[in-house]
Amino acid sequence: MSAAPLRLGLAGLGTVGIGVVKIVQAHADLIAARAGRPVTIAAVSARDRTKNRDADLSGYAWETDPVALARRPDIDVFVEVMGGHEGAAKSATEAALAAGKHVVTANKALLAHHGQALAEQAEAANLALRFEAAVAGGIPVIKALTEGLAGNRIKRVMGVMNGSCNYILTRMQAENLPYETVFEEARQLGYLEADPNLDVGGIDAGHKLSLLASIAFGTRVAFDAVELEGIGNVSIDDIRLAQDMGYRIKLLGVAQMTGRGLEQRMTPCLVPADSPLGQLQGGTNMVVLEGDSVGQIVLRGPGAGMGPTASAVMADVIDIARGCRLPTFGIPASQLAAAQPARAATPAPYYLRMTLLDKPGALARIATCLGDAGVSIDQMRQYGHQGANAPVLIVTHKAAPDDVAHAMTRFAATGVLVGEPVAIRIEEV
Amino acid sequence: MSAAPLRLGLAGLGTVGIGVVKIVQAHADLIAARAGRPVTIAAVSARDRTKNRDADLSGYAWETDPVALARRPDIDVFVEVMGGHEGAAKSATEAALAAGKHVVTANKALLAHHGQALAEQAEAANLALRFEAAVAGGIPVIKALTEGLAGNRIKRVMGVMNGSCNYILTRMQAENLPYETVFEEARQLGYLEADPNLDVGGIDAGHKLSLLASIAFGTRVAFDAVELEGIGNVSIDDIRLAQDMGYRIKLLGVAQMTGRGLEQRMTPCLVPADSPLGQLQGGTNMVVLEGDSVGQIVLRGPGAGMGPTASAVMADVIDIARGCRLPTFGIPASQLAAAQPARAATPAPYYLRMTLLDKPGALARIATCLGDAGVSIDQMRQYGHQGANAPVLIVTHKAAPDDVAHAMTRFAATGVLVGEPVAIRIEEV
Repeated sequence: MSAAPLRLGLAGLGTVGIGVVKIVQAHADLIAARAGRPVTIAAVSARDRTKNRDADLSGYAWETDPVALARRPDIDVFVEVMGGHEGAAKSATEAALAAGKHVVTANKALLAHHGQALAEQAEAANLALRFEAAVAGGIPVIKALTEGLAGNRIKRVMGVMNGSCNYILTRMQAENLPYETVFEEARQLGYLEADPNLDVGGIDAGHKLSLLASIAFGTRVAFDAVELEGIGNVSIDDIRLAQDMGYRIKLLGVAQMTGRGLEQRMTPCLVPADSPLGQLQGGTNMVVLEGDSVGQIVLRGPGAGMGPTASAVMADVIDIARGCRLPTFGIPASQLAAAQPARAATPAPYYLRMTLLDKPGALARIATCLGDAGVSIDQMRQYGHQGANAPVLIVTHKAAPDDVAHAMTRFAATGVLVGEPVAIRIEEV
Repeated sequence: MSAAPLRLGLAGLGTVGIGVVKIVQAHADLIAARAGRPVTIAAVSARDRTKNRDADLSGYAWETDPVALARRPDIDVFVEVMGGHEGAAKSATEAALAAGKHVVTANKALLAHHGQALAEQAEAANLALRFEAAVAGGIPVIKALTEGLAGNRIKRVMGVMNGSCNYILTRMQAENLPYETVFEEARQLGYLEADPNLDVGGIDAGHKLSLLASIAFGTRVAFDAVELEGIGNVSIDDIRLAQDMGYRIKLLGVAQMTGRGLEQRMTPCLVPADSPLGQLQGGTNMVVLEGDSVGQIVLRGPGAGMGPTASAVMADVIDIARGCRLPTFGIPASQLAAAQPARAATPAPYYLRMTLLDKPGALARIATCLGDAGVSIDQMRQYGHQGANAPVLIVTHKAAPDDVAHAMTRFAATGVLVGEPVAIRIEEV
């Protein structure tokens, strides 16, 4: 065990960067004992040196340019917590690897877009490129999947991995408020990215899912193949009615490998209200890992914030200090297979909501469309009439998504529908 | 990355051992890709060679004596899944370390009693001694705590870690059955150890807690200092009445370090019914880790069984194959501090149940005892009289356990009590 310190170059002094500084300073002895050697910060970089950052940075060399930081001879590990998947984050990460530095990053977008090339570069140079903080914040899910479940063939990975979306959905439900109102609240509270579509459009969570899928199935990261649907169209009506049927609506990521290929979805789904996923409130994240030997493992914890994200960064740093090396995505990047996206998702029950004209035979026509498409009905509820119209809820038995879509297109021709029908997948958890 | 296979010597061919054989055989390619080298079984040992074990063992050398297996020159890792904390398991583990073999064990009892000496022996020889499978079955909790949360000062660790006890308690609740009936059911279903007191007496779970506490707080394993109380005295009345107050009763392990010292308890506790711990049903395990940076992480999964336990064993094996080495308890065994057991537990609310004679002033006398002891009342419920007696429930505000005990001893002198009062700690989760 070497006593030489592991020296960090910390690029980015926002919330996460300052969180890392605080842990390194507060727990120097604890970390040295656990890592077998001291972990120190040698140099930092950020754009604005004059900003007050509520941390003592006086002992660290300063670089304005993260690329210059990445190349400094006095650092061993480049810690990238700047964010952004092009520009400085990418060029500095590449420069760090080229200069023989290990890299620890919290940057899901960078890895979702450039993970393959970066992992190949790192592995060719026998360097670590690690990203525990990029997925589900403080939850050690990359470690659980890559190491803890390494003896399993992974069957499915699921997760609620964007706290802002889960906050919005659970608050809509708790307060019976429409999406737009809660979205605006969240924006004003600073819960959303500068481009809120990264959150509510499911992009951020989709990035995370694509990284988990790569590890789970030994495939190259395929973010472009993730079926993405944000929460902007989730209505308070559906939240309320789903609840009435014993379900909750979550922005749920699902990745699974089937005979049809790799499925990756980040879409609003119904899950049973009494399941761990259904019970998840507010900004907390949850990831569900299913392996052929272990069965189902559920991990729950804070998905963002200074402390949790910095905790995950430090886990990677300490692993590097301890000398643990493994490929970025669990097997060597050169061995990752190209993902073959599934043409159609695994069959699942669907929740259908529609409003029918209140005339004889209306419901029968809808039921006929479903039957003709091969979709059978598990439950149906017709609610009290609203004027001349009748809201109808249907829960189907397991059906192929294409069959459901086919039935939906035929609804229009019946002439009994008011407005657009809604279909939401019910994920069996 | 070396292509030389990592060769296992597998001691014990019970459920877990056969689970390991199945994984090694079924996933040879997957494991080789993940570990960077093949993982093979070179030799096995068990007492009875003739027993039918539902696995093809023909390719493995056979030793009747696990000590002989441990010393074989053709093994790199000794996998101990025999069980028992003295005798063969201990001597074979010592022999393996003495012969320069890494050890992976599922044996909580062995480590709870001899972990310090074994870890010192392993570390002096620069060998791995790992035990993921010993705590909470398939949940990668040792990894999460030792590695995933390595940047945190750990504040508290909690867990439901004996599936049989949780099965008994949740079934008592669901079916409104007394302890004795469900205990007998569980015994006949084979859910209990040959000595059932290992399960229902809390000993098995206490072993696990003592191992987690060592890692969490950097202290030597101190199983003898665990406050142990089994579930044998949990009555269906208390389960029902606790539920009525919004709580569930769990055999809950709690380890925390305070200014008073190290607290380790494995006792029946009340937890909020809507908390993750409260919602845990059946044989599933749950561990809650609380760190100063990360906040609260909850891990849930199967705590026993062939697949889950073998999955955990293989995680350790693959880490060793990957070359990851870290001390058994997270810091070098020689640096672990002697645990200073806390003289008294952290204050907590208490649930008190008693039956009072139905006479004027009875409740006032009880309330006076509590007040005199410095225990204040948060909620009180008096239930409908049963003949001349009145069942009374009290939930206190946070109180020192000694003060509660003091009040309880004074209850007797009031002359208004029928039978023995019950006090159960409410753990704030």
